[in-house]
Amino acid sequence: MEREKIFEELTVKNEKKIVLLVMDGVGGIPYEGKTALEAAKTPNLDALAEKSSCGRTIPVLPGVTPGSGPAHFSLFGYDPIKYNVGRGILEALGIDVDVNEHEVVARGNFCTIDREGIVTDRRAGRIPTEKNKEIIKLLSENIKEIDGVKISLYSGKEHRFVIKLKHPELSEEISDADPQKEGLPLKFPEPLTNNPKAEFTANVITKFMKKAVVVLKDSHPANALLLRGFSEYPKIPPMQKIFKLNPAAIANYPMYRGLAKLVGMNVLDVGAEIDDEIITLKREWENYDFFYIHIKKTDSYGEDGNFNNKVKIIEKVDEILPEILNLKPDAIAITGDHSTPCKLSGHSWHPNPFLLYSPYIIKDDVRVFTERECAKGIYGNFYAVDILPLLLANTLKLKKYGA
Amino acid sequence: MEREKIFEELTVKNEKKIVLLVMDGVGGIPYEGKTALEAAKTPNLDALAEKSSCGRTIPVLPGVTPGSGPAHFSLFGYDPIKYNVGRGILEALGIDVDVNEHEVVARGNFCTIDREGIVTDRRAGRIPTEKNKEIIKLLSENIKEIDGVKISLYSGKEHRFVIKLKHPELSEEISDADPQKEGLPLKFPEPLTNNPKAEFTANVITKFMKKAVVVLKDSHPANALLLRGFSEYPKIPPMQKIFKLNPAAIANYPMYRGLAKLVGMNVLDVGAEIDDEIITLKREWENYDFFYIHIKKTDSYGEDGNFNNKVKIIEKVDEILPEILNLKPDAIAITGDHSTPCKLSGHSWHPNPFLLYSPYIIKDDVRVFTERECAKGIYGNFYAVDILPLLLANTLKLKKYGA
Repeated sequence: MEREKIFEELTVKNEKKIVLLVMDGVGGIPYEGKTALEAAKTPNLDALAEKSSCGRTIPVLPGVTPGSGPAHFSLFGYDPIKYNVGRGILEALGIDVDVNEHEVVARGNFCTIDREGIVTDRRAGRIPTEKNKEIIKLLSENIKEIDGVKISLYSGKEHRFVIKLKHPELSEEISDADPQKEGLPLKFPEPLTNNPKAEFTANVITKFMKKAVVVLKDSHPANALLLRGFSEYPKIPPMQKIFKLNPAAIANYPMYRGLAKLVGMNVLDVGAEIDDEIITLKREWENYDFFYIHIKKTDSYGEDGNFNNKVKIIEKVDEILPEILNLKPDAIAITGDHSTPCKLSGHSWHPNPFLLYSPYIIKDDVRVFTERECAKGIYGNFYAVDILPLLLANTLKLKKYGA
Repeated sequence: MEREKIFEELTVKNEKKIVLLVMDGVGGIPYEGKTALEAAKTPNLDALAEKSSCGRTIPVLPGVTPGSGPAHFSLFGYDPIKYNVGRGILEALGIDVDVNEHEVVARGNFCTIDREGIVTDRRAGRIPTEKNKEIIKLLSENIKEIDGVKISLYSGKEHRFVIKLKHPELSEEISDADPQKEGLPLKFPEPLTNNPKAEFTANVITKFMKKAVVVLKDSHPANALLLRGFSEYPKIPPMQKIFKLNPAAIANYPMYRGLAKLVGMNVLDVGAEIDDEIITLKREWENYDFFYIHIKKTDSYGEDGNFNNKVKIIEKVDEILPEILNLKPDAIAITGDHSTPCKLSGHSWHPNPFLLYSPYIIKDDVRVFTERECAKGIYGNFYAVDILPLLLANTLKLKKYGA
């Protein structure tokens, strides 16, 4: 039987409340001897670790560095290999584009073509974002619909944008419209299956790309475009159905709000700072039984290789932790989605430090919330996809399996 | 390749003997600071742990609390999700009903219906077990066979009983014959598939239920019955075939004797006490190469929330352990099937403490057989289904996989 079916059968609703606090990219590797968690002063996290069960979580597979999408699917209790969301969807979520059923989205690049139609620069000289917005406006005014398919365009940074098509007969089963290297002509998408929806979608995209070249004839260097990662809105059984939760997301970055929405979470209004997230949590505490709280900047500073600021964000989270605990969640887990070591200035494959506190855990010997100490915890290394079942168990939301 | 096929290809027979000692529900969570294992004086278990490899075993999935059926299938080396045995079978095993091929069993309740045939009490006022026995006798004398299907009835406690049908053309693919709540008429089973066996079985059950109402017309409050969990005898490849073992079960409770029989074990005659199990083990030592020894009362006292008695049973097992070790098994594993914390008075999801001793293990730092110490053992947390392969490996019963 499939994992989701098992949990759908076992889960029961009760009043107990769960908090899943995710410090994005919090884990790391030593940088001048210490990880950011080891360098940070975290009396509250450490005190909670001391009375919790600890461990380290593997986002996807040992050695595999995940993007935010798969890393979060694991945290939400979904097999990240089975529920791998298309790149187009993730790009759209990242710039706060709302995606729904009957829509196909893709990532776009503005590019430069010469008079013979050969791509001479796949990124159109990385035009300024302001220029991008002008061009998107121009295209949007000139191309609103093709063959009944509504077309929407959204600016990203520099040469990047997102396209969204809306029509009940679309398919993601078409090839990328990207020659992949310079010196080749524009490439139009081709259907990858015999599905007539794929042929229809490929035709619409081809017409769109040709019209865009006409509209952009005076917009050099951004006088054409490439499209990649066509993605339908994914069909994911919501957390309400599989886990019988009434879940809420508190996240102030579009990507994470979007990922939470994909699994059915209620995405709450929240300000831009960590303090704003706590304000939202307190305001909405009575309305939900599961709160996913996302802290972005641990990852941002990891990506920047800014060790001192990563330490400061961890200390800020430590400072607000008592406010979360004062709400008396029945179970709380704290972890990352993936590690982002400053030494690598990017995501990594290292497991995430993890703690879980509830009245039903077995306290272990871990007294400090760090990568190395959590590795000695009672949970050892385990898969992040198992966090949600453990939280459900620790709030008595799972019936017995079999007799 | 499927797991069973892999082991069927790898296993070889030899003279080495394995003991798998299962203390049912032995694991727990702290109760006034200590688990029952931590509170118990267990010099022999601790001495064995000190020279063993230790760890903790996950019965089914992290967070999932198993019933005895799936928990034991894991211990016997069978994927507990693939080999999930029907409720009716487990109920039958629990009251020592022998089930075989071409038989379908179900759980029954006596219930009360009014003159209009409406169910007014799904449990017939929880009639005394003695009354239950009288009614089962009355029914058995009056209904022996329907359409060539032999019908057998077995008393359980209070209003509960088990029905067994014997015929080569039966199917478990029929719905429960239970309105689920009071105020509704009796519900008759319906075929769940197009399989003609399902229709035949549903018809026989319907006739049986109607006849029972006639026979029980003067037996108020137990004047009708409900049936749930129709189950065929499961088709499970025996341990002899997959693991090339000649296995024996020493268990004094019907459920565990029944589970052992399902995987092909020879179920040995044994008295009611732990000492009787040791007598049987010594008597039969030369006749088998695998002994599953089941200790029930660690679980029973956990279910009762009786911490002191759970501690005493653990100490009793510790006392008899030298008698097992004196037989010089080539490999011995000691663990639970699932945890049964007194704090929860029921099964739980917490992994089981585990030790394995053989001449081929790597001794770790664990010196005390408890949940928390075993968690620091060399095996860490692992799936219970892997215990049997480890025992086979440690008795050199597994060939090399691949060249």
